[in-house]
Amino acid sequence: MRLVGVLIACVLLSACVDGKPQVLSSWVEGATKAAIIDFVAEVTTEGSPYFVPVVDRIAVFDHDGTLWAERPEYFQFLMIYEQVRAQAVDHPEWREEQPFKAVLENDTAYLDGLDYAAARQLSAAVSGGMKTTDYMALSHDFATRSLHPGSNARYADLRYLPMLELLEYLEGHSFRVFIVSGGDMGFIRGFSEPLYGVSRDRVVGSSRSNMFADDSSTILRGEKYASMNVGANKVLNIDLHIGRPPVFAVGNSDGDLAMLTYTASHDGFVLLLSHDDGEREYDYISGAEVALQTAHEKGWAIASMRDDFERIFVRTD
Amino acid sequence: MRLVGVLIACVLLSACVDGKPQVLSSWVEGATKAAIIDFVAEVTTEGSPYFVPVVDRIAVFDHDGTLWAERPEYFQFLMIYEQVRAQAVDHPEWREEQPFKAVLENDTAYLDGLDYAAARQLSAAVSGGMKTTDYMALSHDFATRSLHPGSNARYADLRYLPMLELLEYLEGHSFRVFIVSGGDMGFIRGFSEPLYGVSRDRVVGSSRSNMFADDSSTILRGEKYASMNVGANKVLNIDLHIGRPPVFAVGNSDGDLAMLTYTASHDGFVLLLSHDDGEREYDYISGAEVALQTAHEKGWAIASMRDDFERIFVRTD
Repeated sequence: MRLVGVLIACVLLSACVDGKPQVLSSWVEGATKAAIIDFVAEVTTEGSPYFVPVVDRIAVFDHDGTLWAERPEYFQFLMIYEQVRAQAVDHPEWREEQPFKAVLENDTAYLDGLDYAAARQLSAAVSGGMKTTDYMALSHDFATRSLHPGSNARYADLRYLPMLELLEYLEGHSFRVFIVSGGDMGFIRGFSEPLYGVSRDRVVGSSRSNMFADDSSTILRGEKYASMNVGANKVLNIDLHIGRPPVFAVGNSDGDLAMLTYTASHDGFVLLLSHDDGEREYDYISGAEVALQTAHEKGWAIASMRDDFERIFVRTD
Repeated sequence: MRLVGVLIACVLLSACVDGKPQVLSSWVEGATKAAIIDFVAEVTTEGSPYFVPVVDRIAVFDHDGTLWAERPEYFQFLMIYEQVRAQAVDHPEWREEQPFKAVLENDTAYLDGLDYAAARQLSAAVSGGMKTTDYMALSHDFATRSLHPGSNARYADLRYLPMLELLEYLEGHSFRVFIVSGGDMGFIRGFSEPLYGVSRDRVVGSSRSNMFADDSSTILRGEKYASMNVGANKVLNIDLHIGRPPVFAVGNSDGDLAMLTYTASHDGFVLLLSHDDGEREYDYISGAEVALQTAHEKGWAIASMRDDFERIFVRTD
């Protein structure tokens, strides 16, 4: 019975070596894949000097640029732009008012220079006061239905297949996997379960000052952020939501540096994803300069999309 | 093999009916126990009109007065008093300064009238700037070693056995159980795993404005609370930490009312614990007046310690 199951898995995944299902099959056989597998074996094998009890097996993953793409713009921003366009009929004043005007006119030069304050203004305008459940439904529909500009793929198709395999691999070794993202908590929770198999209580993101409505059953999104989950705040929110340091952390930018350093300082495994594949994804180091330099200095594992990813996206790329 | 397991369980628990292990065996057979079992069967039986998918099976439990006793004073306060006494040698000024003086002189009249501001002042003085890991170690030792005034029992022995059985019963039906308490998050996390089997990431409490230390590996407790987890804040923090409404909620005071109402409004099961057993525990309704009245009006389940608990404490009572 078990053998039949393995054979079926081999046929379905087309990824077996000597009749055994291969793990992390979208990863190129090489130093990075080997380092991951070695670390997981070390911390999960009873009697190993580096054995980590199940209760301490916490893994944290950044989201944008780590679990799915983040170009030409954070997808969350693209959803906000979509909402500005959708809600513009009720706001004729937006046609003359920045930053709304730039969105409605698709003024990419203006939008490329958009700062976080302006992005928050847009976000508050389209989602402040909205039910948190409605916002999650919105982001779910956006991720699974809307099309990414330029590639004609659904956003869900731009998840990184090797990272999905890594989530599953860690969970298979009794890790509790959390998404720890600078993105809006409600945005990610809208699709974290169907797209990543990560339940909402394991999503830590930027959070709003939400309000409990008078009907005693509804929660409404606040206008402002209570906590922007980047940099050192990622560490403080890991402590707030999880209560112990991770032993495995994955990120791709300087906003992840504090979380990666925190994990490394507790003998955890640190993996930095490098966007160096201009043909199949994007080639950029902007916003990751310090993280990449630190990874080289400290000897952290680096996953090169070009060299370590056999395939990149969930959809055929 | 399975039969042997059941027989062993029967011998160990001394709680079998017709050779089947009995559930919730410290609960008196009656309407409250039956209501719990009926609800759990309804929401976990496939095909039932009230079936709840596993991902939505969230249960929340208040802590003080719900999972363990809260008299003569919240145990957390008693630990703070213990720390004031322990640290007094480094603070000679405390001998003349309230509220420290009252603690050092065991001025119970003064301490009975202590308001939350003064309690927070004591807490900040003994734990502000302390490593969060040290604070958890402190509360672990306190809960498992220090003795409760008057009863000569360890605090851990004053956990309610029927509630431990309920936690286990719900987990056995694929509920994810969270502690949602007005108590300090770090205080509860210090012992939530050994005492309740609830991992730290499932403890939601009052939280401090903590600080990330310069060594990049340590988190220090802030002087002030960022969020007092009582009343409507319990609901907002459930949304922040869990991301969906509970379908099962247990509390014992007016501070739980918003959480219980929120759960009820989402067709969840609400259980209010009534402290009405002056012989075996305490008999009081102070601080629970509105919750009890609401429970009666709305038809929520009420667990009477006197009538519904065969046994009360983990230790023999």
